[in-house]
Amino acid sequence: MTTPQAVLNGERLALARMLTKVENNSEEGRLALMELFPHTGRAHLIGVTGAPGTGKSSLVNQLALHYRKQQNKRVAIVAVDPSSPFTGGAVLGDRVRMRDLSGDPNVFIRSMASRGSLGGLAQSTANVVQVFDAAGFDVVIVETVGAGQSEVDIARLAHTTLVVEAPGLGDDIQAIKAGILEIADILVVNKADRPGVENTEKALKTMLELAHPAERVFKHHGTYMGVAAPKSNLNKAVWIPSIQRTISTEGTGIAELVDAIAKHTAYLRSSGGWALRERTRLEVELEALLREGLMNKFRESTTAEAFEQALEAVIQRKVSPWEAANDLLKGSTA
Amino acid sequence: MTTPQAVLNGERLALARMLTKVENNSEEGRLALMELFPHTGRAHLIGVTGAPGTGKSSLVNQLALHYRKQQNKRVAIVAVDPSSPFTGGAVLGDRVRMRDLSGDPNVFIRSMASRGSLGGLAQSTANVVQVFDAAGFDVVIVETVGAGQSEVDIARLAHTTLVVEAPGLGDDIQAIKAGILEIADILVVNKADRPGVENTEKALKTMLELAHPAERVFKHHGTYMGVAAPKSNLNKAVWIPSIQRTISTEGTGIAELVDAIAKHTAYLRSSGGWALRERTRLEVELEALLREGLMNKFRESTTAEAFEQALEAVIQRKVSPWEAANDLLKGSTA
Repeated sequence: MTTPQAVLNGERLALARMLTKVENNSEEGRLALMELFPHTGRAHLIGVTGAPGTGKSSLVNQLALHYRKQQNKRVAIVAVDPSSPFTGGAVLGDRVRMRDLSGDPNVFIRSMASRGSLGGLAQSTANVVQVFDAAGFDVVIVETVGAGQSEVDIARLAHTTLVVEAPGLGDDIQAIKAGILEIADILVVNKADRPGVENTEKALKTMLELAHPAERVFKHHGTYMGVAAPKSNLNKAVWIPSIQRTISTEGTGIAELVDAIAKHTAYLRSSGGWALRERTRLEVELEALLREGLMNKFRESTTAEAFEQALEAVIQRKVSPWEAANDLLKGSTA
Repeated sequence: MTTPQAVLNGERLALARMLTKVENNSEEGRLALMELFPHTGRAHLIGVTGAPGTGKSSLVNQLALHYRKQQNKRVAIVAVDPSSPFTGGAVLGDRVRMRDLSGDPNVFIRSMASRGSLGGLAQSTANVVQVFDAAGFDVVIVETVGAGQSEVDIARLAHTTLVVEAPGLGDDIQAIKAGILEIADILVVNKADRPGVENTEKALKTMLELAHPAERVFKHHGTYMGVAAPKSNLNKAVWIPSIQRTISTEGTGIAELVDAIAKHTAYLRSSGGWALRERTRLEVELEALLREGLMNKFRESTTAEAFEQALEAVIQRKVSPWEAANDLLKGSTA
């Protein structure tokens, strides 16, 4: 039996089954999430994002290992890679090879490879993170391939976001850096034994000066419906992302990275940033659920024939998509 | 003055201004799109996607150059890179350097770098493509960084989707390939003078056998509200993506790639696939506009205070996000 209580009790099999239910956005999963939700809000959510080839996965493994061995924390890893079912297998395969982690009952690794899952990948990820949080995992690491907007959006809803780079990944990487730099609380230059590490670090420093990351909470975490987030407790101090060198295959620099994460946590706690990020994350989730609920109501109030007719008129260029949508909305009782 | 008529007349400045209006999703832009829409449906939309470092941009430039010089076609390029304002500049800079294209009045290049634009990047891109289509551009190339779900979604709404790979981009690339392979009509191995090109091609062939791309139209272009797309004209023939080697910096293989695109077009026309893709694209757009319209109605019918109270209850873990959303939906008249 998979009950919310079994998850709260730390039963591993119940946890695995519950994750599947909430990932599938099933009715049972939703009801369970309602029961689990009051037990959330304790985990430290760490987002890790970066372009392919930066060695994110092995870095995440090393982080998890450190939190286990040095701090005895319970660690969950959510590996978000929407590209394919194939990839899901690949990521998982990589994990399984990580002997130091597998078999440890206080580590749980979940691969989210469900392209086009009901309710969207962001929602599925939020649900899975909530289950881990309620189940008492101290640290939940959400790892995403950071080249895409949706993946970046997922990573930046964490309390602490690491952006991983590596030397010598080609010209285009440079451009991507600029974009995801804005969401970085900590920058990691992984594969730091590679040639070009100084150049990568230098480029990051230059871009840091351009990006003004301290302002990002206001700039990017826009508020819904014009409700401003409470700013009064903020700006007591400004957070400047540090740049950490690591060689994840050897474990080099991991302890220093964990220290940097702890410093960021302390900053968030003292500045009011922790509460603001909690708020933003839940606001984004609430809005997504509202959108989904509205669409469901609309589907119930409109016939498939009405939609089909509207679409046909658009295909024949009789009306524009915008007019067709407005007509459908007028006709609906939703 | 920027009028729809001026755009239809081919006035370049009017076109540039109109693109800004529709990209910003302004009221004026929407009204103009209504007028322009009946003039759309003639352009060949080509999506080009691939991971960073594959040389997509220079490949797109070469394609555009070929269509201009060999076929005298009017070509628009929409470069979608949601990562940052910085990147927008970088991409544009790259274009400006492309001397062969700049100054040609029958080429128009638009960089979409508008993170978090109103209505979303997919909608903005669709609008911009419609303007180019109405303005009489024969070929509209939509270029995206293909590592993210949203960018892949944008690229696959084209008539013909090219997925660009390159040899020697590291281990993670392999995983990404599998995902975007499913959306490829044509696979391009760019930078084919690099070592490892045989391995890349071999890996692609192996994955092609796994991916069954011929079925993708049904599998991935799911229908809205259960309305099945007309299948009767399909499956007369099966399209197997070809693999094309190019060296875009030298223009090598571009003519052959253009031939492959023409073959795919002929296949789409004869199989009914063209109409099906048109339908899918417009269906996706109609649904997105519906979602936006529903949210707008909801905002009008709900007070900011009611939303704020609901959010506060969630933050304090009194109710789950799902319950809060349901309560708000019940209270709203939308």
